[in-house]
Amino acid sequence: MIPSRKEVQDARERVRSYVHNTPVITSRLIDELSGAEIYFKCENFQKMGAFKMRGAVNAILQLDTEERKKGVVTHSSGNFAQALSLASKNLDVKAHIVMPSNATLVKKNAVEGYDGIITESKPTLKAREEEANRIVNTTGGTFLHPSNNTNVILGQGTAAMEFLEEVPDLAFIFTPVGGGGLIAGTAMAAHYFGDNCQTIGGEPMQADDAYRSMLSGTIETNDTAITIADGLRTNLGDKNFPIIKKYVSEIIRVEEHEIIAAMKLLWERLKIVVEPSSAVPFAALLKEKNRFRGKKIGIIISGGNVDLSTLAF
Amino acid sequence: MIPSRKEVQDARERVRSYVHNTPVITSRLIDELSGAEIYFKCENFQKMGAFKMRGAVNAILQLDTEERKKGVVTHSSGNFAQALSLASKNLDVKAHIVMPSNATLVKKNAVEGYDGIITESKPTLKAREEEANRIVNTTGGTFLHPSNNTNVILGQGTAAMEFLEEVPDLAFIFTPVGGGGLIAGTAMAAHYFGDNCQTIGGEPMQADDAYRSMLSGTIETNDTAITIADGLRTNLGDKNFPIIKKYVSEIIRVEEHEIIAAMKLLWERLKIVVEPSSAVPFAALLKEKNRFRGKKIGIIISGGNVDLSTLAF
Repeated sequence: MIPSRKEVQDARERVRSYVHNTPVITSRLIDELSGAEIYFKCENFQKMGAFKMRGAVNAILQLDTEERKKGVVTHSSGNFAQALSLASKNLDVKAHIVMPSNATLVKKNAVEGYDGIITESKPTLKAREEEANRIVNTTGGTFLHPSNNTNVILGQGTAAMEFLEEVPDLAFIFTPVGGGGLIAGTAMAAHYFGDNCQTIGGEPMQADDAYRSMLSGTIETNDTAITIADGLRTNLGDKNFPIIKKYVSEIIRVEEHEIIAAMKLLWERLKIVVEPSSAVPFAALLKEKNRFRGKKIGIIISGGNVDLSTLAF
Repeated sequence: MIPSRKEVQDARERVRSYVHNTPVITSRLIDELSGAEIYFKCENFQKMGAFKMRGAVNAILQLDTEERKKGVVTHSSGNFAQALSLASKNLDVKAHIVMPSNATLVKKNAVEGYDGIITESKPTLKAREEEANRIVNTTGGTFLHPSNNTNVILGQGTAAMEFLEEVPDLAFIFTPVGGGGLIAGTAMAAHYFGDNCQTIGGEPMQADDAYRSMLSGTIETNDTAITIADGLRTNLGDKNFPIIKKYVSEIIRVEEHEIIAAMKLLWERLKIVVEPSSAVPFAALLKEKNRFRGKKIGIIISGGNVDLSTLAF
């Protein structure tokens, strides 16, 4: 069931006081380079540094008192681990985070900094899921998937809603595609609240499951996903794919060097720190810029959590 | 002669439509770390990426039609080279920039990108000055010093004026100290328009001419100035030093590792790209944080022009 206009609107009101209405920025030079009129919605300035905060907050706020007492559970080595930890801390809920044993110390420290309770698992999806199930069974906590959960998806859509409130006549919104939560939420917001606004995904060629899923009409997976855009290695799910299939216009795939070049441009010209995944939709636009010349385009900068000791340039 | 309150105010009005009123940002985590309430004025988001745009614009706008026709001249390998080029381009004036032959290609390209006319000189201050003099004599253009020029100083002060318009009750404003233009302009603005607002400079220990000048009461110079904060290697001048002596409360010196650590914090926590010089006043505050606990503090992030291929972390 695809959420209604009202459900999308309600999520916006629900999370309003718990997340930042992040700034929208522009650059004359980037407009010149691309030939389009580009607006960047800076979710790298969101609490904990990424849009994932929105979905985590919205999902926890939908739990009743009893459920909140028992806590929440997820498995993630990325931004959702931090987001669920911080959202839980702010809402006085316990967060159990299953992280693969090979997650970096930087990521573990970030989760612990937000009082998330880490349980390590073997670094396979199966082991992570089993460990999360075990914790759910033990604690009675609620499992919240990082991207394939309707309330999470609705929360992620609030970024696009704010975006359209600030720049109502965007012709396109570009987002990255990873697990599908952000693009599904965005596509609903654009459909219900945009003025004929189309949603387009940027995806790494090395992890192009969403592109292939759109072609085949069923959820395809990545055998390998060796991309610098580490937030985009995951697959779509049964909650977000129907929304994506219905409301996303197109997925544009980009090569690794295109991602790095786009990221460099964002750092150098916008003077903002963005993670590789954030550069993917901008890379997609630059790749196909001739088709978008003169258009008013929104790009969601998804996050800014990078390990400065391992930069690509 | 120290400029009057009205002259400072006039500069603010003069440059208003030619520069960005840059955003002021905050971070809960940085406040927790420092124990103070910190506001960052983000001149890294200024046109061409640094506050220097303000002084360049103000100085050119003070030239009459005849002078503008003959163009402007400076010597700089840093942000003022770009600032004068872009300000000149926007105001339809020719800019001659003397750059040392060992300036990086990145910096030369940036100047040329803004239509600055580069003349190379040997990499000594004497050679640069001689070359600039030669161009002034040939073209009849006006020489504008990057920091020791009253109109440039007045322009730089407009950042602090905007800052105080947005956060009127700052108890302190911290800026970096290099050639002295920014801190002199800031100190005048804080004196005339702040509510008992003190100006404090951050300076690299390796280029502590301003600190020593404040002690001795005369302009001291750096024999060597080997610091990562490449914008702060220059010396004070006879136009800005009297202002600094009168209106700056204190210079705090910081070590190289403190500059790098402060810069890393800004990148990681504020998600903004700042150049090493910009991190110096923040490093100064962190070093002496016990003295500033609970205070409302403004820090001017001076610029964000970095060569991403040569980062310190």
